[in-house]
Amino acid sequence: MSEPMPARGFPPAEFQTRITRLQTAMAHAGHSALLLTSSADIFYTTGFLTRFWESPARPWFVLIPATGTPIAVIPAIGADLMGKTWITDIRTWDAPFPEDDGLSLLSDTLAEIVPETGTIGLPMGLETQLRMPLADYTKITQTLAPRRFVDATDTVQRTREIKSEVEIRKIRATCAVADRAFARISDYAAEGRSHAQVFRDFQRVLLEEGADWVSYTAGGAGQGGYGDVISPAGDQKLIAGDILMLDTGAVLDGYFCDFDRNFAITRADDAAKRAYDQLYQATDHVLATLRPGHRACDVHAMFAQSLTAQGATPGAGRLGHGLGVTLTEWPSFTPHDTTELRAGMVLTLEPGVEIAPGRFQVHEENIVLRAHGCELLSTRAPAALPILR
Amino acid sequence: MSEPMPARGFPPAEFQTRITRLQTAMAHAGHSALLLTSSADIFYTTGFLTRFWESPARPWFVLIPATGTPIAVIPAIGADLMGKTWITDIRTWDAPFPEDDGLSLLSDTLAEIVPETGTIGLPMGLETQLRMPLADYTKITQTLAPRRFVDATDTVQRTREIKSEVEIRKIRATCAVADRAFARISDYAAEGRSHAQVFRDFQRVLLEEGADWVSYTAGGAGQGGYGDVISPAGDQKLIAGDILMLDTGAVLDGYFCDFDRNFAITRADDAAKRAYDQLYQATDHVLATLRPGHRACDVHAMFAQSLTAQGATPGAGRLGHGLGVTLTEWPSFTPHDTTELRAGMVLTLEPGVEIAPGRFQVHEENIVLRAHGCELLSTRAPAALPILR
Repeated sequence: MSEPMPARGFPPAEFQTRITRLQTAMAHAGHSALLLTSSADIFYTTGFLTRFWESPARPWFVLIPATGTPIAVIPAIGADLMGKTWITDIRTWDAPFPEDDGLSLLSDTLAEIVPETGTIGLPMGLETQLRMPLADYTKITQTLAPRRFVDATDTVQRTREIKSEVEIRKIRATCAVADRAFARISDYAAEGRSHAQVFRDFQRVLLEEGADWVSYTAGGAGQGGYGDVISPAGDQKLIAGDILMLDTGAVLDGYFCDFDRNFAITRADDAAKRAYDQLYQATDHVLATLRPGHRACDVHAMFAQSLTAQGATPGAGRLGHGLGVTLTEWPSFTPHDTTELRAGMVLTLEPGVEIAPGRFQVHEENIVLRAHGCELLSTRAPAALPILR
Repeated sequence: MSEPMPARGFPPAEFQTRITRLQTAMAHAGHSALLLTSSADIFYTTGFLTRFWESPARPWFVLIPATGTPIAVIPAIGADLMGKTWITDIRTWDAPFPEDDGLSLLSDTLAEIVPETGTIGLPMGLETQLRMPLADYTKITQTLAPRRFVDATDTVQRTREIKSEVEIRKIRATCAVADRAFARISDYAAEGRSHAQVFRDFQRVLLEEGADWVSYTAGGAGQGGYGDVISPAGDQKLIAGDILMLDTGAVLDGYFCDFDRNFAITRADDAAKRAYDQLYQATDHVLATLRPGHRACDVHAMFAQSLTAQGATPGAGRLGHGLGVTLTEWPSFTPHDTTELRAGMVLTLEPGVEIAPGRFQVHEENIVLRAHGCELLSTRAPAALPILR
């Protein structure tokens, strides 16, 4: 049934293609180099994959020159692992070193590859964060003057958002892990089990089904629908009439899935079944309609129109987003995001409806956008609300 | 045997004490307000606990005024959960909103509580990161001028690093989860099992033993010792003579443990046993010697001297660090960190030795520093290298 799991990692050619695409965008934007500090950008350009990012102690830097291959300026503890990637220019310091935590090494390297008249691109925009101490950033902007730091959000996002076929295979494999975990729902969710136990077991089953780790699970449960979907699970027990939603960002070889499933506990009232059907129909509508050239805000409008036409009240907030090497990537399906959707983007379709004040249902699928339209990466949810008896 | 698990969350008095301590430090530093953006600082001051931070899409802000209670300026999706904490002043916007992603709401709120002559403290130093788009930060520094943004790393770190008794109980409970998972090592590690399977099962067992989630696992395995300790597990199998190290940052109610255990597979050579003994003795030495008033660098020296006196070569890098609401906290046991160690700090003791070039063994325990010395939070490792037959 399922495809074999893709081989670990990527061939150097995959990274070379990524760097060439970045360098083309850099040339267009006039950046002499890119400075990358986030785990996602560094994994994307080098293949450096570790859970060590969980420790905030040390900054990590990767520089993309205008031509040639990336340079890693990293704590010595990462030299061995970085040495196993395609990166050959690896410069290290013994971090953490309070007086100079890699800063002079970083400055020297940037000065080497960026002329004094040049600019250094750094992601500074929406959905980006600078993963280094702010005071150190301020210092290098002074040290490296007259070189200027400029926003490179577009350069990075327009590159990363188009996934290669091998990336798409990775995300499909991660989605398959979650598919299998959801298929085993009866093993771990039933009337009388506590939310905390169900959330814990859901993670256990994701691991059993092949996740390397489980970076995110969320969910909600309540009579006929749920409110908040970002709280940790409590000790209350599932009761008949609850709608249980489980959502996961499991990780396989550095790539995330991000979709949810809804289940009724023992029985479902008509309003919950109707909401499920409305969300299912709205998702079918977008699956059939969405094409490259639509904008992010168009997807929001498609969902809102389909739900409203069915007499439902669309949920607030965004109704889907990008997906890949982080749990969520840009763009956001809101009325305000005008990002153009292009073939090769991996996206979540995530409509929600408000059944009653504070009572919601949210439905989510993962897709890749192709020239002809949507291709599912998650196995489509059941057409009717499943009832766990 | 083990203590019952502490109740979830904290009473409002715990947070009030934290805020009073922060405000005392703020007054001393002359900050009119603190701006907090990281999950750890926001959890610490409000109790807002969610895995939703995994999504980089939205910034979150908490302001600590010079007097009074914190103000949350957050995406609307978090209003429900924040409303369950002790925070009452919660201001929201419908994020993500590209043109103004909470920025005017944040500016207005800061302008309300900080006089034009005042300063806004923001952690900018070592081991801190600004979790908001850099371009937005630059904008508010201009909007809010002549108010100045200044470094508040000390204010936050000197407060957070002293744990309350209820925090210490939480960390002890998380350590107990890992203790139980390590005690079951024979269930999931043996000759012939792949590294990937062992790492995956270790996480599964941590969940079974009560972890809410597993934010970090790492490890290594190799003949007589291991090299790199930050790589993901590969498909190679454990073989006789391997030393297997597993390290975990499991999470219970928002608090981490961070310690490792070493195991020999089927048999152990003398060098591996000797390294284990040396690390065990060095740890005993620090457990017996460390007192409030020592500096972080003194701990490094204690380890280095004990290991060197035993004829061992101390590993490079830091030999321990703080622990709490993130996997690692400051200070760092390096020769360069002069942070004073005080009663109430929760710390990891993490000596390593280099057995041969590129072959290491690392040993780790978690402690709380008391007026009289170290109190273990992890159950002390076995006195001799355990052999899994």
